[in-house]
Amino acid sequence: MNTYGSAFKITTFGESHGEAIGIIIDGCPAGLEVTEQDIQKELDRRKPGQSSITTQRKESDTVKILSGIFEGKTLGTPIALAIYNENTKSKDYSHIKDSFRPSHADFTYSSKFGLRDYRGGGRSSARETAARVAAGAIAKKLISKEKIGCFAFVSQVGSLIYDFDLEKVDTSLIDENIIRCPDEKKAEEFIKLIDKVRKNRDTIGGKITGFIKNVPPGLGEPVFDKLHAELAKAMLSINAVKGFEYGSGFSGCEMLGSEHNDIFYKTEDDKIKTKTNYSGGIQGGISNGELIYFNVAFKPVATVLKPQETVNDKGETIQLEGKGRHDPCVLPRAVPIVEAMASIVIADFYLRNRLSRI
Amino acid sequence: MNTYGSAFKITTFGESHGEAIGIIIDGCPAGLEVTEQDIQKELDRRKPGQSSITTQRKESDTVKILSGIFEGKTLGTPIALAIYNENTKSKDYSHIKDSFRPSHADFTYSSKFGLRDYRGGGRSSARETAARVAAGAIAKKLISKEKIGCFAFVSQVGSLIYDFDLEKVDTSLIDENIIRCPDEKKAEEFIKLIDKVRKNRDTIGGKITGFIKNVPPGLGEPVFDKLHAELAKAMLSINAVKGFEYGSGFSGCEMLGSEHNDIFYKTEDDKIKTKTNYSGGIQGGISNGELIYFNVAFKPVATVLKPQETVNDKGETIQLEGKGRHDPCVLPRAVPIVEAMASIVIADFYLRNRLSRI
Amino acid sequence: MNTYGSAFKITTFGESHGEAIGIIIDGCPAGLEVTEQDIQKELDRRKPGQSSITTQRKESDTVKILSGIFEGKTLGTPIALAIYNENTKSKDYSHIKDSFRPSHADFTYSSKFGLRDYRGGGRSSARETAARVAAGAIAKKLISKEKIGCFAFVSQVGSLIYDFDLEKVDTSLIDENIIRCPDEKKAEEFIKLIDKVRKNRDTIGGKITGFIKNVPPGLGEPVFDKLHAELAKAMLSINAVKGFEYGSGFSGCEMLGSEHNDIFYKTEDDKIKTKTNYSGGIQGGISNGELIYFNVAFKPVATVLKPQETVNDKGETIQLEGKGRHDPCVLPRAVPIVEAMASIVIADFYLRNRLSRI
Amino acid sequence: MNTYGSAFKITTFGESHGEAIGIIIDGCPAGLEVTEQDIQKELDRRKPGQSSITTQRKESDTVKILSGIFEGKTLGTPIALAIYNENTKSKDYSHIKDSFRPSHADFTYSSKFGLRDYRGGGRSSARETAARVAAGAIAKKLISKEKIGCFAFVSQVGSLIYDFDLEKVDTSLIDENIIRCPDEKKAEEFIKLIDKVRKNRDTIGGKITGFIKNVPPGLGEPVFDKLHAELAKAMLSINAVKGFEYGSGFSGCEMLGSEHNDIFYKTEDDKIKTKTNYSGGIQGGISNGELIYFNVAFKPVATVLKPQETVNDKGETIQLEGKGRHDPCVLPRAVPIVEAMASIVIADFYLRNRLSRI
Repeated sequence: MNTYGSAFKITTFGESHGEAIGIIIDGCPAGLEVTEQDIQKELDRRKPGQSSITTQRKESDTVKILSGIFEGKTLGTPIALAIYNENTKSKDYSHIKDSFRPSHADFTYSSKFGLRDYRGGGRSSARETAARVAAGAIAKKLISKEKIGCFAFVSQVGSLIYDFDLEKVDTSLIDENIIRCPDEKKAEEFIKLIDKVRKNRDTIGGKITGFIKNVPPGLGEPVFDKLHAELAKAMLSINAVKGFEYGSGFSGCEMLGSEHNDIFYKTEDDKIKTKTNYSGGIQGGISNGELIYFNVAFKPVATVLKPQETVNDKGETIQLEGKGRHDPCVLPRAVPIVEAMASIVIADFYLRNRLSRI
Repeated sequence: MNTYGSAFKITTFGESHGEAIGIIIDGCPAGLEVTEQDIQKELDRRKPGQSSITTQRKESDTVKILSGIFEGKTLGTPIALAIYNENTKSKDYSHIKDSFRPSHADFTYSSKFGLRDYRGGGRSSARETAARVAAGAIAKKLISKEKIGCFAFVSQVGSLIYDFDLEKVDTSLIDENIIRCPDEKKAEEFIKLIDKVRKNRDTIGGKITGFIKNVPPGLGEPVFDKLHAELAKAMLSINAVKGFEYGSGFSGCEMLGSEHNDIFYKTEDDKIKTKTNYSGGIQGGISNGELIYFNVAFKPVATVLKPQETVNDKGETIQLEGKGRHDPCVLPRAVPIVEAMASIVIADFYLRNRLSRI
Repeated sequence: MNTYGSAFKITTFGESHGEAIGIIIDGCPAGLEVTEQDIQKELDRRKPGQSSITTQRKESDTVKILSGIFEGKTLGTPIALAIYNENTKSKDYSHIKDSFRPSHADFTYSSKFGLRDYRGGGRSSARETAARVAAGAIAKKLISKEKIGCFAFVSQVGSLIYDFDLEKVDTSLIDENIIRCPDEKKAEEFIKLIDKVRKNRDTIGGKITGFIKNVPPGLGEPVFDKLHAELAKAMLSINAVKGFEYGSGFSGCEMLGSEHNDIFYKTEDDKIKTKTNYSGGIQGGISNGELIYFNVAFKPVATVLKPQETVNDKGETIQLEGKGRHDPCVLPRAVPIVEAMASIVIADFYLRNRLSRI
Repeated sequence: MNTYGSAFKITTFGESHGEAIGIIIDGCPAGLEVTEQDIQKELDRRKPGQSSITTQRKESDTVKILSGIFEGKTLGTPIALAIYNENTKSKDYSHIKDSFRPSHADFTYSSKFGLRDYRGGGRSSARETAARVAAGAIAKKLISKEKIGCFAFVSQVGSLIYDFDLEKVDTSLIDENIIRCPDEKKAEEFIKLIDKVRKNRDTIGGKITGFIKNVPPGLGEPVFDKLHAELAKAMLSINAVKGFEYGSGFSGCEMLGSEHNDIFYKTEDDKIKTKTNYSGGIQGGISNGELIYFNVAFKPVATVLKPQETVNDKGETIQLEGKGRHDPCVLPRAVPIVEAMASIVIADFYLRNRLSRI
């Protein structure tokens, strides 16, 4: 259903143009210091209208804590967060009410449920991810007590690729430009390309690289709930994501075992580390203490401001043209979403791991 | 934990060299015709010793139905299946008892649990997937009543790639050769490459392509349990998998929205279809009635028959050499595993979809 | 955690004096007609200040639909309901901030979480049940489509007992008096007794009888999720409940098998019925089509307006006296809660039963 | 479905006359010492043929560990336990194949699933509880590390009642007689009564009292998963149980708040205790450190060795007479089941409580 997680459990609700979207976090331990400002800070990274390469829609996305936090600390009870929708008295949606926009979820929601909230995509809108970013802010605080940090940046736009050495990425630079790429020069190229696409009333895809620092050995569960399997699910559950790989990923298909194996050695301070990290910090579904890293593929946004052919609910062929203010590329606003989902996955495994030994 | 699925729920158990491995399927509806032979047929596709390019270990992997099936039909109660381990009086494992094999789960299991069953990898052994294949056989029967079929084949070994037109793939040819690629010529190339690697006492990675036919519109759930997100989790939960993509996948990063959008049209028999299928049969996490297809990346098997440096549990550097009979490439035996997990995912969503409307 | 149900899944949130209490219903099928008024009607039956024998606190308990319902129908997406707390700028709670009220949850919450929202009992307040009543209103609508109806009435106050013939109880009379007992004469006795207790600044316990009409055979699950086991859990999860029995209940301890067995017979319209109903409409955890009935025991409200000895969080003995306006007896306001929880249990099993056969 | 528990999760499988019954425990932490003998000891307390007042059927109920335990310790992986059914080549069941025995689950299973395993009641047989007793033995070991102990004894048979002072019950005497009542004199009365009923080819109901020692404050979860709500569900899920009450229970209905409230005080060693214990050791769903105690009502066994009228699956009236060897009273064999389920509930909450604070 609309719940993710086992110990740190989140349930989102809300349609794009309903009264509110929001989230309940059930399972956040008591005693964690959290303020509305901690959450708002992350939401502001995701909100629309931040720059010339994102949608120009203005929504403040202000979070309201409804429960679970008292005198600045979590109570151990469900934390309910709401983001009230502004401008819900909807503008004109008559052009899509009875039509199925190409590569949107209009047709599939109607097929499944027999009806749908057609305003702004309803439940299928990426607006739902704001709720996740809010919960992610709390997950971040929880795991930061263990020094764990989840980061993401844009590593590809269209066919432009950013070649990086993950060990050298300066996470403090990620938010220094509007595309969220820590390399200033590459960022400019990315921005220029998106700008060109935008002026062409089109959209473009790309890739985000995520990584997680300071995960201790032992997080993740054998078999189905492998750490990377949950990361995959979490990432693929984000709107517009088409693929996930971790460690060597798809390039691992081409390798020999003798190359791919990560040789263990002992450090001077008696820790067991690996010389290479094709495993991506995870072996047998459980973290081994090395850096966890992964790539997430995003398709181009489906709403293009060009006329397209499609059908309406009577099956008649019609012409449809995207209206309004839409993102030419989801990547810059997706960076905090990737970080949020990664933080939620890690928070969940961090708590679950308390149950692994007597 | 060790459970997957929401309506069609599977729980596996067992260590590689314990008494038995097995699975409980809880949630298979009553009245489905299932025989031990239906299950054994799929297990035989996965079992070791099938050909020169798989491990030469001989295990019969015979399934035993312990409960849930009576007079040839499912009872609606839990179906328990056991595969008893043969030769459990273990050969000599002293060489790995206290050592951490590179890129295996020895180190991470010990880190997590404080102890481990070191015989043959214990719970982390790919032997656990036999239980999934057994359950997958029942899932296949369930969804075949709706004409849905899940298929997979090997599409890449090392850097050798099989270029195919999915619409033209003849599923009856998949099992016609030992690598499980429906193209005879490409199969020969693949086999030759694996053979070379094997003789070199090394291992190699590759890719499996999966596809699902005749899924009606409406399967999959909004938000977290998107159909492709569950496929991703299911695939990444298989041993040695490093990546997953569906539809346009990572190549979708390079596309424009105007190219990527799948235009709807109405067929002569009044169905709504799309002209292209970059969406991979899924929009907004819900099936749209088109072919579902995806790629799964496998790393090379970690056990190479060459000496490798590693550490033991005291952190001392040692030399370790893989012993015994291992697969030089997991792909041929992984094909039925991919099909099984896809079938289980679809069976689960097929049942869940009964709850979507009043 | 704070979730109940498997198919019709509810998650409540909120502290008594926080911003809001509320509930998410995840799993209500699409297409059900629901209005805010449907929900408010049930809330009004539970709200404080209804009569002289309930608390005189005035709270409007107005429900707000945040998501999941569009143009008067459920969307199949999570239905979020909020009831905003009025007067949250708390009156003086300094007298209980550091004290543990006898037979309240102050001590246990502090023991568990290390901190608590002491205002009005925080999460442990019976105010949380308002959220359940709201969800119950939707469950009622769902099962009413199958003609199923859940009812409850007060059948005991202190040692005064109402002897009834369940077949003859007129459900339309339940709300005709302020104690919610369908027998006018007994109701008067009950009211008189509560009034006396109230004037004495004390509180009193009692019993509610619940029954469910028109449940078709087949609802309930074997083994753990037996229909009566879930009813028991649901009822015991209501504040102040100390016991549950169904069918013959505790009096069944005294019976012989030959007396207790319900003999099957066939009706003129070819239905299989039982001559007696000691089974309470449930056999082997599954409904058999007969009337389901059960009793729920409530202890007296813990807040008495008399001075009582207790300890503070330093373990010092202090005198504490209940302040404010409290219920002398929970029963009249608990009737809609019992009905709500029964409706939620039945709605859940009704949906789950769609999965029992191929 | 067939799973109980959240952290210490059990799933049972098996029909009475199928190949095996069994259980998977998923979530038992690694490092717990468990032997087959630990489990067998509890099974022997439940097995048939123990005495003149239980069924004379001979089944050895021998447990086999299939997975999850290695070199005498739990691995942190699923523990699978099987009890193979002996004499499965069934005797003659033709008399019940097409008939619905009164107050059994034949009719309801057939109504739900459309078919059933009619041999010995199939899945609805109390034989399933052997699997729970096996898991309970492991739960007992886990919680005994915290000095927690779950006990039960027979406190009523028919209308004979054992009046006891719980503080003075000597748990070492419970198994000293065949009825499992720690008072020798009362035990004799109970046995005499059952013997009389048995000779009369009838059966009789009764009550079991359970109690749990040394539970620390803090176990249990707010709202739905209250400690007593889970105990209620666990007990009501046992075959033949009709009611549950804890603490003051149904007698609490008759009390005043000023009587019922348990006054806190501080002990000389600085612990906070209560002077009375009407709360039954649980306040707001969470343990307060006092003794937890509860009563469980059992109806008489449905199989009586007298002819009874019933219908067959064509709805025709027939005469049916119980055959074979059945229990005249479930109580003595139910004592270890009650203890097992209580132990499982407590083990689950004990583990869950590790997640309550940062």
